[in-house]
Amino acid sequence: MKLSLASAMIDAALAEARTLNVTVCVTVVDAAAWPVAFARMDGAPLGVIDVSSKKAKTAVLFQMDSEAFGKIAHPDGVAYSLENTNGGLTSFGGGVLLKALDGSIAGAIGVSGATTEDDIAIARVAARILST
Amino acid sequence: MKLSLASAMIDAALAEARTLNVTVCVTVVDAAAWPVAFARMDGAPLGVIDVSSKKAKTAVLFQMDSEAFGKIAHPDGVAYSLENTNGGLTSFGGGVLLKALDGSIAGAIGVSGATTEDDIAIARVAARILST
Amino acid sequence: MKLSLASAMIDAALAEARTLNVTVCVTVVDAAAWPVAFARMDGAPLGVIDVSSKKAKTAVLFQMDSEAFGKIAHPDGVAYSLENTNGGLTSFGGGVLLKALDGSIAGAIGVSGATTEDDIAIARVAARILST
Amino acid sequence: MKLSLASAMIDAALAEARTLNVTVCVTVVDAAAWPVAFARMDGAPLGVIDVSSKKAKTAVLFQMDSEAFGKIAHPDGVAYSLENTNGGLTSFGGGVLLKALDGSIAGAIGVSGATTEDDIAIARVAARILST
Repeated sequence: MKLSLASAMIDAALAEARTLNVTVCVTVVDAAAWPVAFARMDGAPLGVIDVSSKKAKTAVLFQMDSEAFGKIAHPDGVAYSLENTNGGLTSFGGGVLLKALDGSIAGAIGVSGATTEDDIAIARVAARILST
Repeated sequence: MKLSLASAMIDAALAEARTLNVTVCVTVVDAAAWPVAFARMDGAPLGVIDVSSKKAKTAVLFQMDSEAFGKIAHPDGVAYSLENTNGGLTSFGGGVLLKALDGSIAGAIGVSGATTEDDIAIARVAARILST
Repeated sequence: MKLSLASAMIDAALAEARTLNVTVCVTVVDAAAWPVAFARMDGAPLGVIDVSSKKAKTAVLFQMDSEAFGKIAHPDGVAYSLENTNGGLTSFGGGVLLKALDGSIAGAIGVSGATTEDDIAIARVAARILST
Repeated sequence: MKLSLASAMIDAALAEARTLNVTVCVTVVDAAAWPVAFARMDGAPLGVIDVSSKKAKTAVLFQMDSEAFGKIAHPDGVAYSLENTNGGLTSFGGGVLLKALDGSIAGAIGVSGATTEDDIAIARVAARILST
């Protein structure tokens, strides 16, 4: 995951958040879960800094969006307590897996600070950068 | 738990995983929950490294398979929150307690990366090494 | 510390790093030590992600550059072991305290990945954004 | 870092340790510091499990052997306290950086349990697998 790409995704996420009139944190990690870029919008609650990071980490570590992860890592899911591994993961939406055009995993983006629905929408808008 | 035995169990687990066409991580711990051997198959999601370790730890710390542990350490179980002790434990299958021929606890094996059903099957195949 | 300002400082740091032909990580934190923005240049060693963060944290928590902090928080300094507080701090240069025009603390910037001399130079170039 | 390669390096390390009549732990990590394989010889002190892991991590995170890292991350070095980043690193020998034939970083191997001199020798014997 090159910084130029991560930065473009963060810019796209911030632009979408402004359009939706919400304030979020955005984290982009590489395929091995190491951070590449991060931004916190003015006014975002301090607690969501870590949430955006954990959403991105969750997606890339288990190769699925954090929303899908939440269906299995949940008291009613098939792998309850999976959310407590790897230093704590995120069982709700806003972490989106990023794949390169050849299908390989490129990393993940985590957005947090708005409603889960908006967090997901913002992450997906940013993720589209990868396929253009 | 001797390294020769742990290595033989890891080899058996890897062979079974290849037969089932899945990619997993395998951890063997001794009777005091300290790791003896570990292997990560090519292509296994990075998140399952820690899960295989926690499954083995869960089994040996509570002297039962992680599947049985999950029935009590669950919001609907008799000991909800037990899964949050000891740095985080695993409330689903894939951690199998290992007993020596005389019935004493020899350690545990944790397998993660496939379906829970397959993880359990792989761990059990490996555990059979102990009784041969 | 507004994101627009933090982003401008990161851009200035990255430009200076490219001029010096080095690869670094850059972290900007606010006056309460919470991260505002972060960037990792392509090819920077993974270990310096955390170092850039700890340099910024060190500067803002003790209201001095990490280079000055290193003179006191050192086996030969007056406050040896201070570097072990707050989750681990950094006793060498590259974390620069950021002050607003009125003298109040605005945050800090941490740069890591090059020589300490270059890390400091890059952080100072970026910090100049605040006084323009 | 493929498991077949990591396993071959671990086997080579164990053979060399037996030749030297010492007991060690050996950890192989990939280029992003994630563990690939681990083995603890019978009789190795429990404390060296973590040391072997931290040696490997140190080497790969800072792209140098842990022995070289110890020269800079030391009270008398240019980057005292660097050893306290990334969850704790290792400022003495036994972590050896692994490079592929094309010069790219392949991962690292960490050996601990014998004298530092022997730990280094064992790690180097194992690392030779990469160039054959």
